[in-house]
Amino acid sequence: MDIDESAVRKSGGIFGRGWWCLKALPGRFIDNMVEFAHKVEKLGKDDPRRITHSIKVGLTLSLVSLLYYCRPIYGGFGSSTMSAILTVVVVFEFSVGATLGKGFNRALATFLAGALGFGAHHLATLAGDKGHPAILWFFIFLLAAVASFVRFFPGIKARYDYGVLMFILTFCLVSVSGYREDEILELAHKRVSTIAIGCLTCVIMSIFVFPVWAGLDLHKLIAHNIEKQADFLQGFGELYFGTKRDMDMSWLHGYRSVLNSMTAEEAMANFARWEPAHGKFRFGHPWKQYLKISGMTRQCAYRLEALSNSITSEMKAQKPSEFKKIITLSCMEISIELGKALQEISSAIKNMTYPFTVSTHIVNAKTAAEDLHRALEGITLNNTNILDDVMPAVSVTSLLLEIIECTKNIAESVKVLACLAKFKGADLAILPEKQTRRLLRSGNIKPHHAENDSTHALIIEYAPSAMVE
Amino acid sequence: MDIDESAVRKSGGIFGRGWWCLKALPGRFIDNMVEFAHKVEKLGKDDPRRITHSIKVGLTLSLVSLLYYCRPIYGGFGSSTMSAILTVVVVFEFSVGATLGKGFNRALATFLAGALGFGAHHLATLAGDKGHPAILWFFIFLLAAVASFVRFFPGIKARYDYGVLMFILTFCLVSVSGYREDEILELAHKRVSTIAIGCLTCVIMSIFVFPVWAGLDLHKLIAHNIEKQADFLQGFGELYFGTKRDMDMSWLHGYRSVLNSMTAEEAMANFARWEPAHGKFRFGHPWKQYLKISGMTRQCAYRLEALSNSITSEMKAQKPSEFKKIITLSCMEISIELGKALQEISSAIKNMTYPFTVSTHIVNAKTAAEDLHRALEGITLNNTNILDDVMPAVSVTSLLLEIIECTKNIAESVKVLACLAKFKGADLAILPEKQTRRLLRSGNIKPHHAENDSTHALIIEYAPSAMVE
Repeated sequence: MDIDESAVRKSGGIFGRGWWCLKALPGRFIDNMVEFAHKVEKLGKDDPRRITHSIKVGLTLSLVSLLYYCRPIYGGFGSSTMSAILTVVVVFEFSVGATLGKGFNRALATFLAGALGFGAHHLATLAGDKGHPAILWFFIFLLAAVASFVRFFPGIKARYDYGVLMFILTFCLVSVSGYREDEILELAHKRVSTIAIGCLTCVIMSIFVFPVWAGLDLHKLIAHNIEKQADFLQGFGELYFGTKRDMDMSWLHGYRSVLNSMTAEEAMANFARWEPAHGKFRFGHPWKQYLKISGMTRQCAYRLEALSNSITSEMKAQKPSEFKKIITLSCMEISIELGKALQEISSAIKNMTYPFTVSTHIVNAKTAAEDLHRALEGITLNNTNILDDVMPAVSVTSLLLEIIECTKNIAESVKVLACLAKFKGADLAILPEKQTRRLLRSGNIKPHHAENDSTHALIIEYAPSAMVE
Repeated sequence: MDIDESAVRKSGGIFGRGWWCLKALPGRFIDNMVEFAHKVEKLGKDDPRRITHSIKVGLTLSLVSLLYYCRPIYGGFGSSTMSAILTVVVVFEFSVGATLGKGFNRALATFLAGALGFGAHHLATLAGDKGHPAILWFFIFLLAAVASFVRFFPGIKARYDYGVLMFILTFCLVSVSGYREDEILELAHKRVSTIAIGCLTCVIMSIFVFPVWAGLDLHKLIAHNIEKQADFLQGFGELYFGTKRDMDMSWLHGYRSVLNSMTAEEAMANFARWEPAHGKFRFGHPWKQYLKISGMTRQCAYRLEALSNSITSEMKAQKPSEFKKIITLSCMEISIELGKALQEISSAIKNMTYPFTVSTHIVNAKTAAEDLHRALEGITLNNTNILDDVMPAVSVTSLLLEIIECTKNIAESVKVLACLAKFKGADLAILPEKQTRRLLRSGNIKPHHAENDSTHALIIEYAPSAMVE
């Protein structure tokens, strides 16, 4: 706003102000439009598949609407053709899994409820002209109440919520229509057929034209989250113990995305379970194991959050304390080795290979932790300010020790995933374990050998329960 | 399974096994039924409003289906009456806010898309018989693609997702139907009216018959989450420093519910914004502020998670270390005072009063922290095992110091809420602040006085931005 304009605005009365508003309108409109365009551009750039998806929906919808113009088809289905169009609007979702899930729910629910509605109508007819509405009324009340309650079951809510809704809807449609229309069987049949056509079109379009796989997205997301934690840990040592101070720290907080992603991940895993085999993923890929890994990653992220706070407070400290100097080497070693381990895990997930070398890094981190233990055991602190010198560094140390455990847990759950999903090399990894077990059983080796390599033992513990689910 | 049965199963061939399965079938069926009944009972007991809701849906649906049997009304709307029934199925949600939001979305989108669809149909008619389908086809493609893209905007996704879906749906319905049916205006009019009837019935039923307010639920949830943290902190001191060891520790982890509740809270806040004034909540209650409080609570929960780990490891320690004895009193004081502060905050939210006395508890905790500082400054540790004796206790201490900050943040954001939502006593709390500001401006007092009581200063900082949102 120019000074002149502002002066006019202030000095003028209502008319002056009104005139100013009117004059500013085109400018403001242009500003808003530019801002909007930027938003659109950002949305599209963040994930170009959004644009493809929008075009796919437009295409599918106009494709199905052709049915309506096509006289032979329209002649067959009549105004029920509209159901096919409506189905496309409602069923077509971003990912293949979501589309399949909704399509399956809609088709099955329509079929079942259509049959049941027809039965209800038939039963009600037996009651004569007066009893008919009363019986239908009772059926609708009962079914709607029961189905609404069923929607509260967490398992149903997650996967079949839409199906239950469609079930009530179709049941009402068919049973109530029966009261007015004579060709109720015809109606039910047409509705089921057109909805099936709609669902099928959606499914075909979403699978064969630039498909977006929820499973692949989940797979990438989990690997990405672990990679962000690796970045943090690899940078942390230099930042806390080193001399880097004024660098850009935005990369540091990348790990935070995992903190609140549980709901999104659960939804993705639910969608992924609907998806057929694609790329390197078989049907029945152990998607639930991804949620376990993610849970472990979140536990790790809570610790990183605490570490990140200590960096901020350390920035204010002037010079490193005596105590800090003692622990520096070991802590940096631990942090970097854990970073490498997580990097390795992330790459293993991305490339779908068994994380063979991750144990080495964890063992290195543990060795560094033992060195730290030894260094601390012999120490005597004279004239040391506990509060300013020892406390912050001790917090960091114990957090790092906790993160070793977290990393071990992540590694173990990823190894379980590798075995369940038959990642490259997973069979080789299981082989020595099987041999160990046979030797164990035959009494040739003692159990505590197996304990030492606890990651392998854990795979066996985890695997059956994970497979049963 | 009895031993006999199992023996039969093992020894017998396929027939034996088949017979066994058949014999076990009724028993298994009964087991499943019993388990299912327990699940239903639990769902109902956890929240009896679920049962009320189910009955409400059943009643509303059967009420609206009466329209269909009623000859005068059916005569007016014809088969469009079905739209009213379908609307009820889709729009009736658990909370008033969700129902209002969906109803509003559906009604407005239907109206707008109906008008636009009619316009598109009219425009297409001008193009003649051949051009008509082509133009309609293009319109549908364009609108579906644009609307699908719009659904990716986070703001739209959160509040108007269903509206956009209904918009595409109705537009297709009206514009495409126009190609076959002559009375398109009649069709659009009937559809809008019946949908309005359906929405209105849902809204009336959900507001006036045992209403479930999303806002009230959110309000209670936030207070409950803070209370759980208070429980933890009040019990923590006794558990870590005291002698209680073998007590039931399930209450300890109540605070964990807040860790993954962000998505649910955001949905509740979105629903709450649709709700009219109810109970002590005005329309335009600052629901977003609850999300801010919840964010602060989550930050606190991350620290509690770390504290909780230290309890577990402390359980293994045999006798308290020298160092631990020094910090015990202050740490217990801090933990209990913070617990009291959070308890006070939780009660203040529940009773909608300004948390006047919370500052006292925070100041007490800070004083205890200062005592701790003094105790630690003078300390010299000779012959102390840093690793086992000092480290765990130091971690706990620094976590407690961090939690003081977290509690302060929670208290501040709750005070902002109290002012924005005009809790009881909030006007009295602002009064001295305004005076301080006037004095500040006139130069009678120096700014750093205000800084000391930073909670008040923060209210001013927060309030305008929170109000603008």
